[in-house]
Amino acid sequence: MEGLKNVNDNILRAFFRQTFISINCLPHLSEPVVNGLIETSLRGVDSHGIRLLPHYIKAALSGRINLDPRLAFKDLSITMASLDADHTFGITAATLAMNKAISMASQFGIGCTTVFNSTHFGAAAIFALMAARQDMLGLSFTNTDALVLPYGGKKPFLGTNPFCFAAPCEGEDPFCLDMSTSVITWNKLQLFRAIHKQLEPGWAADQVGKMCTDPHVAQALLPIGSYKGYNLGLVVEVLCSLLTNMPYGPHISRMFPLNGEKRQLGHFLMAIDVSKFQEISLFKQRMKQLLDELRSMAPAEGFDGVRVANDPEKEACLQRSVRGIPVSQEELKNFRELAQSLEIDVRDYPALFGEMK
Amino acid sequence: MEGLKNVNDNILRAFFRQTFISINCLPHLSEPVVNGLIETSLRGVDSHGIRLLPHYIKAALSGRINLDPRLAFKDLSITMASLDADHTFGITAATLAMNKAISMASQFGIGCTTVFNSTHFGAAAIFALMAARQDMLGLSFTNTDALVLPYGGKKPFLGTNPFCFAAPCEGEDPFCLDMSTSVITWNKLQLFRAIHKQLEPGWAADQVGKMCTDPHVAQALLPIGSYKGYNLGLVVEVLCSLLTNMPYGPHISRMFPLNGEKRQLGHFLMAIDVSKFQEISLFKQRMKQLLDELRSMAPAEGFDGVRVANDPEKEACLQRSVRGIPVSQEELKNFRELAQSLEIDVRDYPALFGEMK
Repeated sequence: MEGLKNVNDNILRAFFRQTFISINCLPHLSEPVVNGLIETSLRGVDSHGIRLLPHYIKAALSGRINLDPRLAFKDLSITMASLDADHTFGITAATLAMNKAISMASQFGIGCTTVFNSTHFGAAAIFALMAARQDMLGLSFTNTDALVLPYGGKKPFLGTNPFCFAAPCEGEDPFCLDMSTSVITWNKLQLFRAIHKQLEPGWAADQVGKMCTDPHVAQALLPIGSYKGYNLGLVVEVLCSLLTNMPYGPHISRMFPLNGEKRQLGHFLMAIDVSKFQEISLFKQRMKQLLDELRSMAPAEGFDGVRVANDPEKEACLQRSVRGIPVSQEELKNFRELAQSLEIDVRDYPALFGEMK
Repeated sequence: MEGLKNVNDNILRAFFRQTFISINCLPHLSEPVVNGLIETSLRGVDSHGIRLLPHYIKAALSGRINLDPRLAFKDLSITMASLDADHTFGITAATLAMNKAISMASQFGIGCTTVFNSTHFGAAAIFALMAARQDMLGLSFTNTDALVLPYGGKKPFLGTNPFCFAAPCEGEDPFCLDMSTSVITWNKLQLFRAIHKQLEPGWAADQVGKMCTDPHVAQALLPIGSYKGYNLGLVVEVLCSLLTNMPYGPHISRMFPLNGEKRQLGHFLMAIDVSKFQEISLFKQRMKQLLDELRSMAPAEGFDGVRVANDPEKEACLQRSVRGIPVSQEELKNFRELAQSLEIDVRDYPALFGEMK
């Protein structure tokens, strides 16, 4: 693709770390963010990967994100905890919360942590995969600001509220479903605007809730399966807003514009120790068998095969770990501006900022 | 609606009980089935209500359902248990399993029970609502036989694998989402066949996996949100088949024809004690506020309002508790045949079998 430069993930990691050092963010707060963003880009999920770095740094400088948080866990039962994130980075808060859930699950089979006073947590898969890589089932949810129409409604109410579930599998990285409960994401809509491409019917609606295909007219996203996706988004909202006493739907402060206002997002993280239910090797073998059986099915016309959630991400990861992460011209420009504003010498990162070979 | 007779739920309950007595089924096994089917019909979910009684009785007589099961709970941790249902009625097994989950949750915050060697469990909402009516979050899942196309595939692999979640709400029955992960159910397809009505695009596919709108040509259902619903069905399959070591997808024995073969279905039930996370009155008040805010939104063109999951069912319940449950001519015919085969005197149930006024 034109205008893309492939950059080794360790080069990116070094630059990312330097940006956090420049804003006096301590490593225990920044490392989960650095690794989460880079892992997400390695997995091919460009919407939630490295492109978010400048936003997160600016959010910290604006006061939205607190660089000196008092992170406070509270044990609610032997299997449940809550975390007051005190407006630290969402990825950091959710990482700590999932670690806590995993630790409770390893003792008592299940662990569940809610997070409040948090902010954008990147890709939900980061946290569900943490559990699955320790042979547990991982679930992660977050609320987000209003973009999706309720079924029958005119105006957006809930966000794209992602549903994420991961499970371990023999001989390969876990199965992992990380999906928004809307048909497409806001990012995808913006991409279609940029290239003036018509949306497919059923993806979006105009300002009075009428379905439309013109991306410039579209003002709201539609949920998957009409009333089903809408109510599934509501389930995520209950877990993230109501269990945590955080604002919901239209009362959540917007991700954009970035004005320093705190987000007060809530997350819900759960880990379930598979071995309590089933011998782990048997579970993982059967998981492998189930996924391979699906992958070996004859494809329908117009498809080249059947895949399962996380297959495209695993392929991307294999490729990008070797060839590097594609950085777009726009991302590069944003990174360069970020470096300049933080007085980081771009010449220290020639593989990222130097001339393309 | 023509050919419908409204029958008081207690009349139906009395007749249903008699059918179970006639096959020598003890009340502790039959009561959950009787109440589950009748509650489901009261809630307006006719596909999973009273119409299933003859099927369940025949399943017991065929040997598929075991009337003398050795139900065996096994504690897997203080918050986890499994239940060998030994082929009792699915509704009975899942009711016991949810009671166990609720009991664990009331002590330790979360309870989770898997069920194996089970069979059709009726409407998933029955069990999730049990938890929600005790101020807990309730989740219930089951696997089902292959009817839904994997995204990109030609042949059905997973079932309609329902996802069900319920949460308590101030001043009204709980919020409850009970949805198949396919766009429509097989029942709906059959209904369209019966009335020779065209399906909507995106609902079903023909025998080579090509989308079609002719209900007589349709051989498979499509998942909601294409790859999203398909993978969400896979999540349900992992919880119900892999945690329990039960068969999955195409290896699950069919509900029809009823040949005495045992089903070996798996279920997954979870209860989460809300009060551990949040003062219960605050949670329920905010739940009410959230739902009412959605309901008061201006509707889009072509809609008469915004509703939330379980609203139609609550309305049906209010109406049917007073006016009775509508029994179709076909259901009545099936009940009459059932009574005859069990040597039950239909004259004992005049309000059900007598002449319509």
